[in-house]
Amino acid sequence: MIVVMKRGTTEESVQLMARRVEELGLKAHIIQGTERVVIAAIGDKRGSERDTLASYEEVEQVVPILAPYKVASREIKSEPTVIKVRDLVIGGGRIGVIAGPCSVESEEQIIDSAVKVKAAGATALRGGAFKPRTSPYSFQGMKEEGLKLLAAARDVTGLAVVTEVMTPHHVDLVAQYADVLQIGARNMQNYHLLEAVGKVRKPVLLKRGPSATMEEFLLAAEYILDQGNQEVILCERGIRTFETHTRFTLPLASVPYLKERTHLPIVVDPSHGTGIASLVAPMCTASVACGADGLIVEVHPDPKKAMSDASQTISPEGFAKAMDQCRIVATALGRQLG
Amino acid sequence: MIVVMKRGTTEESVQLMARRVEELGLKAHIIQGTERVVIAAIGDKRGSERDTLASYEEVEQVVPILAPYKVASREIKSEPTVIKVRDLVIGGGRIGVIAGPCSVESEEQIIDSAVKVKAAGATALRGGAFKPRTSPYSFQGMKEEGLKLLAAARDVTGLAVVTEVMTPHHVDLVAQYADVLQIGARNMQNYHLLEAVGKVRKPVLLKRGPSATMEEFLLAAEYILDQGNQEVILCERGIRTFETHTRFTLPLASVPYLKERTHLPIVVDPSHGTGIASLVAPMCTASVACGADGLIVEVHPDPKKAMSDASQTISPEGFAKAMDQCRIVATALGRQLG
Amino acid sequence: MIVVMKRGTTEESVQLMARRVEELGLKAHIIQGTERVVIAAIGDKRGSERDTLASYEEVEQVVPILAPYKVASREIKSEPTVIKVRDLVIGGGRIGVIAGPCSVESEEQIIDSAVKVKAAGATALRGGAFKPRTSPYSFQGMKEEGLKLLAAARDVTGLAVVTEVMTPHHVDLVAQYADVLQIGARNMQNYHLLEAVGKVRKPVLLKRGPSATMEEFLLAAEYILDQGNQEVILCERGIRTFETHTRFTLPLASVPYLKERTHLPIVVDPSHGTGIASLVAPMCTASVACGADGLIVEVHPDPKKAMSDASQTISPEGFAKAMDQCRIVATALGRQLG
Amino acid sequence: MIVVMKRGTTEESVQLMARRVEELGLKAHIIQGTERVVIAAIGDKRGSERDTLASYEEVEQVVPILAPYKVASREIKSEPTVIKVRDLVIGGGRIGVIAGPCSVESEEQIIDSAVKVKAAGATALRGGAFKPRTSPYSFQGMKEEGLKLLAAARDVTGLAVVTEVMTPHHVDLVAQYADVLQIGARNMQNYHLLEAVGKVRKPVLLKRGPSATMEEFLLAAEYILDQGNQEVILCERGIRTFETHTRFTLPLASVPYLKERTHLPIVVDPSHGTGIASLVAPMCTASVACGADGLIVEVHPDPKKAMSDASQTISPEGFAKAMDQCRIVATALGRQLG
Repeated sequence: MIVVMKRGTTEESVQLMARRVEELGLKAHIIQGTERVVIAAIGDKRGSERDTLASYEEVEQVVPILAPYKVASREIKSEPTVIKVRDLVIGGGRIGVIAGPCSVESEEQIIDSAVKVKAAGATALRGGAFKPRTSPYSFQGMKEEGLKLLAAARDVTGLAVVTEVMTPHHVDLVAQYADVLQIGARNMQNYHLLEAVGKVRKPVLLKRGPSATMEEFLLAAEYILDQGNQEVILCERGIRTFETHTRFTLPLASVPYLKERTHLPIVVDPSHGTGIASLVAPMCTASVACGADGLIVEVHPDPKKAMSDASQTISPEGFAKAMDQCRIVATALGRQLG
Repeated sequence: MIVVMKRGTTEESVQLMARRVEELGLKAHIIQGTERVVIAAIGDKRGSERDTLASYEEVEQVVPILAPYKVASREIKSEPTVIKVRDLVIGGGRIGVIAGPCSVESEEQIIDSAVKVKAAGATALRGGAFKPRTSPYSFQGMKEEGLKLLAAARDVTGLAVVTEVMTPHHVDLVAQYADVLQIGARNMQNYHLLEAVGKVRKPVLLKRGPSATMEEFLLAAEYILDQGNQEVILCERGIRTFETHTRFTLPLASVPYLKERTHLPIVVDPSHGTGIASLVAPMCTASVACGADGLIVEVHPDPKKAMSDASQTISPEGFAKAMDQCRIVATALGRQLG
Repeated sequence: MIVVMKRGTTEESVQLMARRVEELGLKAHIIQGTERVVIAAIGDKRGSERDTLASYEEVEQVVPILAPYKVASREIKSEPTVIKVRDLVIGGGRIGVIAGPCSVESEEQIIDSAVKVKAAGATALRGGAFKPRTSPYSFQGMKEEGLKLLAAARDVTGLAVVTEVMTPHHVDLVAQYADVLQIGARNMQNYHLLEAVGKVRKPVLLKRGPSATMEEFLLAAEYILDQGNQEVILCERGIRTFETHTRFTLPLASVPYLKERTHLPIVVDPSHGTGIASLVAPMCTASVACGADGLIVEVHPDPKKAMSDASQTISPEGFAKAMDQCRIVATALGRQLG
Repeated sequence: MIVVMKRGTTEESVQLMARRVEELGLKAHIIQGTERVVIAAIGDKRGSERDTLASYEEVEQVVPILAPYKVASREIKSEPTVIKVRDLVIGGGRIGVIAGPCSVESEEQIIDSAVKVKAAGATALRGGAFKPRTSPYSFQGMKEEGLKLLAAARDVTGLAVVTEVMTPHHVDLVAQYADVLQIGARNMQNYHLLEAVGKVRKPVLLKRGPSATMEEFLLAAEYILDQGNQEVILCERGIRTFETHTRFTLPLASVPYLKERTHLPIVVDPSHGTGIASLVAPMCTASVACGADGLIVEVHPDPKKAMSDASQTISPEGFAKAMDQCRIVATALGRQLG
């Protein structure tokens, strides 16, 4: 950490602050600038010391030097983590394709979806059984019955099943049926839930919260990793900005940015990221082009009849065309879709 | 809802869409504009119909007319809800003052805090026993032991206790000790938790999520109200914007805005809202001036030694001065602090 | 426009409002909903009537139906506008590549840059002669001398020259030397400047302001079009959001979104859009993949010695590699780079 | 500046970087941390050196220590700047009140406005003669005729006149009539305009751009100060965030934040800051409570007939009530309104 003292701080205050730094278990190194004194606080602390030092009146700011995440970092593990479950491979040059309806609605709907997305190139099936909805008056999902239907669709197609778990006491239940546990954007900082899925030995797809910084996102992953579960898939699904023409703003630069800093694979969700069906295909292609390790896409046999997220859901035909474009780009760039 | 058709849509498509609107249980009313046809869809639906209609290719946009929240709305209950627990009164011209440390750290610290904030005018004590922390490596709170110390501080001072509950299976435990259950900003859309506190008969202080719209905030309150708990206190604690000079951006206009739309009381948290100790007092005064029903402020007997949020925590002396300013303004405007 | 009346508005108020709508030259159409009355105001006004109606106390909200831009719209001109200047072609399946240093610094630097970016596939040269800088103490550009050096670099390479004009009384001067006039992001709503370049018969590259909505962006283009200059190139260069790990957030979904609504071509600036050299290449590729009609990239013969924007500037070698990737993707998708 | 080297950088690279720092005219001070080496670059540079150093591959980040603005800073001038023009006093415990219509529309309208806002306590008259409008099809102001009407209203009432200037070649014209030159939010970084008003000897009211950081805002002021004009009034008028229930988000914490850092006075514009007439009065009161040196408010004799900004404009009666509340609060806090 670098502690920047206010202009005009007395030598005595500087010495006092240096002592305080040493009391925190760090080594203090005083640097006399032309207008300010700064104290370099040396050590490997990444915690609340920053805040403590910042609270002194003589301190102008405290600048952290170390990133606060460790286990997720490339510095700890330089080779990329590759996730494999059934035919779904995410990372290491393979682009995993997770597709399916927003919600599981019926046996026919989910099996029809699974068959069609598989035919178009998907390697995993998505579908919500427990649905977090903004309004208490909206459809909340088929719950355990939905999980059973997902498993049935897996039996028919062999696709891996990705589905959301919303609360710690559902983790065991969902893990019985799912191949990959999804943590939704609203729950990115639901720490008890993160700890609970960290104890399971199934991959976790962690969605970025709509106002989460990269640090917060990686620290949320760190909660899971810290419990022993090393299979975390990061998912960029769009952030909340002043833009209203799309549902969220999809900041694709987070894909190459994250790949420089973490060994965990990164998947993009252009359905939530845009909220508009006609924008899903071009954003899939762009995601592949900038290095995404996977895609997660909302596809429904009859989008107009979808019980949730209808306006951002594409048809199996639209999905097949999007995957054709993605495959062309992936191949051209030396990677493999699916 | 108003369904705006794309320019050049055929009469046949308009008729088809009108039929689809009626199938959803709404009455369709076709209006021929000079450049567009719009269909007014009449009825009291507030649900997913919008999304369904928006998914049709011929539709340019669907504009909702009704706000999606009901029970929280002034239209359902015009007189303001007043919360009373021990000496804490929030609403109806009384400004509740909740103050105390970010975290409970020891018996001495919490009792000292309670005595001092009471002397300065607080009517409730805040203090975290279960602490949601961005990093898994930060102090996570004293847990049940912290709850017991809060209760001890209440025994000494008579102050009502406000403390956070983070996960559904802790609700009963926290409710044993707390007078008001706090839902943190990260959990504003943790629906299982909202439902769990909705079943308790204690007031709930619901913090706005850092990227929540007013609609999402009121719908989160609606989850609690819908379970039968009518005592919800809304808390504006700042939103995430491009501003980095403060920890969050404190949008005080949400106070009068919410008061026009909901009967629920609104409390402001200038500690998290700014993240900077020197800005807390002026933002307390401004909150009172624009009509807030309460304040929640981080105060620690020795801010520099606070184990969390040190840089936004003020001293008991600073708090006492801030409350003096607030009292002057409240009195001048015909309301009562504390 | 749709005028939504407040709940409980009297029949008399509704009739008064309908009359007011008609006084504005619109036709009023009253619709009785189950909870609200709405008035459809029919006509082709796109102006301040909305604000006027919104100011009545009985009105809850006024919803516009027509987009406020006209000439920029696909509805007015459905075929895409293609810009051609020397070898630079933007639109119609051709991807224009504009590259060069942030600032013109010397004859050697700009000619060296031009030769190298041309070799890597650029069809136009960028370089700032008049530099808008956040601080008055930063290098402000070589001004007219810089323009002359750009012209010299064009003489050597044949590349079209793209350079910024900052104020109306420089427009004639800059137009003497430049092939394309650039309006910077800070000046997107500098209306006198927009009008001035609207009177010139040279293409204008209009950068999106960092907090501009799509509507504001298209209306800024409309200012130029309205003066008779039909050659406007839109440039997405990133928006300001809460993200700080990149300089701006690059919202690539604006590319396909704009292409649905306007006939004007769209170019992406991944240098400003990310602010980080290592992210420029993947974002170039992603831009091509989602349909961009062009790229504008900061390239300097020796990025470390660049007098401005050094941290987001790439080397000629890095640029050549990025263009190779872009060419592969463009070709695979049936378009042509350069 | 603090230059943070990447983990694992060789001793040789560190030495090279230290040399590069010294070549920039700074003193290099190498600090060996436990995981990283950092180099403190000592000197009073505030310019592009940061960017240059950040462009080296071995550098992880460069952290500036000095704020980039000088003349605007409290460190250069600790006593607050007070602006006095006719009866308008801004700063030093006096709260200036600038009020009037968005646009000058007619002689009767502007004189009527002036008389009424003066009666309610205003000390200056606002009114747009040159109007920056998002759409080229909106009313653009009465131009010079409007300036003459403002002067006429000043003759009648004695109020100081505050009006916007949009482009450098209008500065002399506007300065003939106005007492205070306003720079609109869209032009906060129109540097030629800032320089032009910097050469005039009349106070300048500089509005914050909707996505400007505090640093950018103060550096824009610095452009004016740097030209010799020391009378700059900062105006917080709201920022663009994800919030859509208000036109902008009004971040009042910028008032006390700026007062800690700059000697320039700060005025708040709650009309643009909220965009909703009913929120203007509470936000005026809150602004006074948190220390604003002035207010600028849109008031029209008949808000429903205002030719621009009707939905955020209040009536003279509403304004008088708002000023009564503000006066009560100002007096209670030991300051003086008007």
